[in-house]
Amino acid sequence: MSDAPFRTLAVAGLGLIGGSIALAVRERWPSMRVTGVDTPAVLAHVRGNGALDRAVTSMADVGDVDLLVLAAPVHENEALLASLPTPGPALVTDVGGTKRSIVDAAAGLGLASRFVGGHPLGGGERGGFAFARPDLFEGRAWILTPSGTLPASHEALIRFVAGFGARPVTMAPDAHDRLMGYVSHLPQLTASVLMDVVGSRVEADDLRLAGRGLVDTTRLASSPVNIWRDICDTNADAIGAALDDLIARLQALRADLRGAEVERLFGEAARARAELMRGRE
Amino acid sequence: MSDAPFRTLAVAGLGLIGGSIALAVRERWPSMRVTGVDTPAVLAHVRGNGALDRAVTSMADVGDVDLLVLAAPVHENEALLASLPTPGPALVTDVGGTKRSIVDAAAGLGLASRFVGGHPLGGGERGGFAFARPDLFEGRAWILTPSGTLPASHEALIRFVAGFGARPVTMAPDAHDRLMGYVSHLPQLTASVLMDVVGSRVEADDLRLAGRGLVDTTRLASSPVNIWRDICDTNADAIGAALDDLIARLQALRADLRGAEVERLFGEAARARAELMRGRE
Repeated sequence: MSDAPFRTLAVAGLGLIGGSIALAVRERWPSMRVTGVDTPAVLAHVRGNGALDRAVTSMADVGDVDLLVLAAPVHENEALLASLPTPGPALVTDVGGTKRSIVDAAAGLGLASRFVGGHPLGGGERGGFAFARPDLFEGRAWILTPSGTLPASHEALIRFVAGFGARPVTMAPDAHDRLMGYVSHLPQLTASVLMDVVGSRVEADDLRLAGRGLVDTTRLASSPVNIWRDICDTNADAIGAALDDLIARLQALRADLRGAEVERLFGEAARARAELMRGRE
Repeated sequence: MSDAPFRTLAVAGLGLIGGSIALAVRERWPSMRVTGVDTPAVLAHVRGNGALDRAVTSMADVGDVDLLVLAAPVHENEALLASLPTPGPALVTDVGGTKRSIVDAAAGLGLASRFVGGHPLGGGERGGFAFARPDLFEGRAWILTPSGTLPASHEALIRFVAGFGARPVTMAPDAHDRLMGYVSHLPQLTASVLMDVVGSRVEADDLRLAGRGLVDTTRLASSPVNIWRDICDTNADAIGAALDDLIARLQALRADLRGAEVERLFGEAARARAELMRGRE
């Protein structure tokens, strides 16, 4: 199609998000030439799916594509940034769950004018190309954190993201990290800790007696640690503050299980839940 | 049908659970005569649905039915027990989320030989007869906590429960309350506290940027407080112990967000989650 925002694209890391980007590009702009960067095993799987024009195992072979998408865990994206070839990609973005760390890394490497941080929301608890889908981003927000970038390439990136049916949202890196600390990182860690506690206190046979409440509340507990290790490391201050809030309210409830706190809690939680669900159901 | 375990049934409280029992009885054993006990407004709604043969607003008018099911919040069930007519129902059961309190109340009233505690698992976050369905109990566990009850009536109650497609499970009241503290009450309170924290720290507009993770993790946050007030009150010791466990692990994580605790947590949580989901998917 003539409206393709880029002629050539490279995706480094073909897991759930990177793989879904490659598949979505094939559907939306079949003329765009897509290079995949990953291990030989992953590349063989993705090539079999017809989602790549070219497969390379090293950043040195990426060449001067119009756009490079870094889709590995945060610290690995930072390492990939540091190993970019020269002249290399005209524009670079990433899809990591935190933004301050990678934006700072890009600036430190003198890449500020070529880098726009990105974060497509709502990946899913099951990682890997096996779960990638071209419609993964349909109707979801895709946060962009532009800094010193040229307006023209930012515009192209917005068209790229919108082409997948995502809703582009612009935000500063620190606002992104603080917000995600509450709406993404805190729910993930809460689900993991809840599942860990229940699993350590309840026999496997008795888990059969758990209802849908526990099942839904702990869906995130199978999320891949390689992604979350880096998110916790690069957003520890914001996550720490969110955990402090959670712990304080759990302690208040624990101290007043037979008192007015239960009433207050359910009232506020139901109000916030209704707000969260507005426009979703 | 000739295999009906009881000829006459009364259900006190026609919300999600009590209403679903009435609807399920109509489907399974149309010959069973069903009396409903609730406020005039609720009764009018349920009668319009054809689920009752008789509607009364007072326990005094229930008469000597074969089985009475108490399906109000726990403390209300205890009050209903205390107001039973004489001679009254041959057998009484309840569907409350805690069992020690109501079983003790029955014993205190000299009703031990006529009372069997019950708890059908997995109600749902939306209460009221509007959400009642005859297949609500299909494939779910229904815990029974018999004490001094005559074996014959216990057998009939097991057939009653199994007739709805539920799986009867026998357990002691204190084992029930301790187990539910972890697999039901802790997930509910965790979801409520998480939603309360996020709602108080994130602007309504920014809640639009939350993904499916927060949505699933907080589904329970709209649960009705009238049921949960009594559950917290009558299981405060077990819930307190479960909350202590959760708080301790959250604190351990908070102190080591950049360390090995993240790795341990995700490993254990994923293992427990796989165990929870075994046989469900």
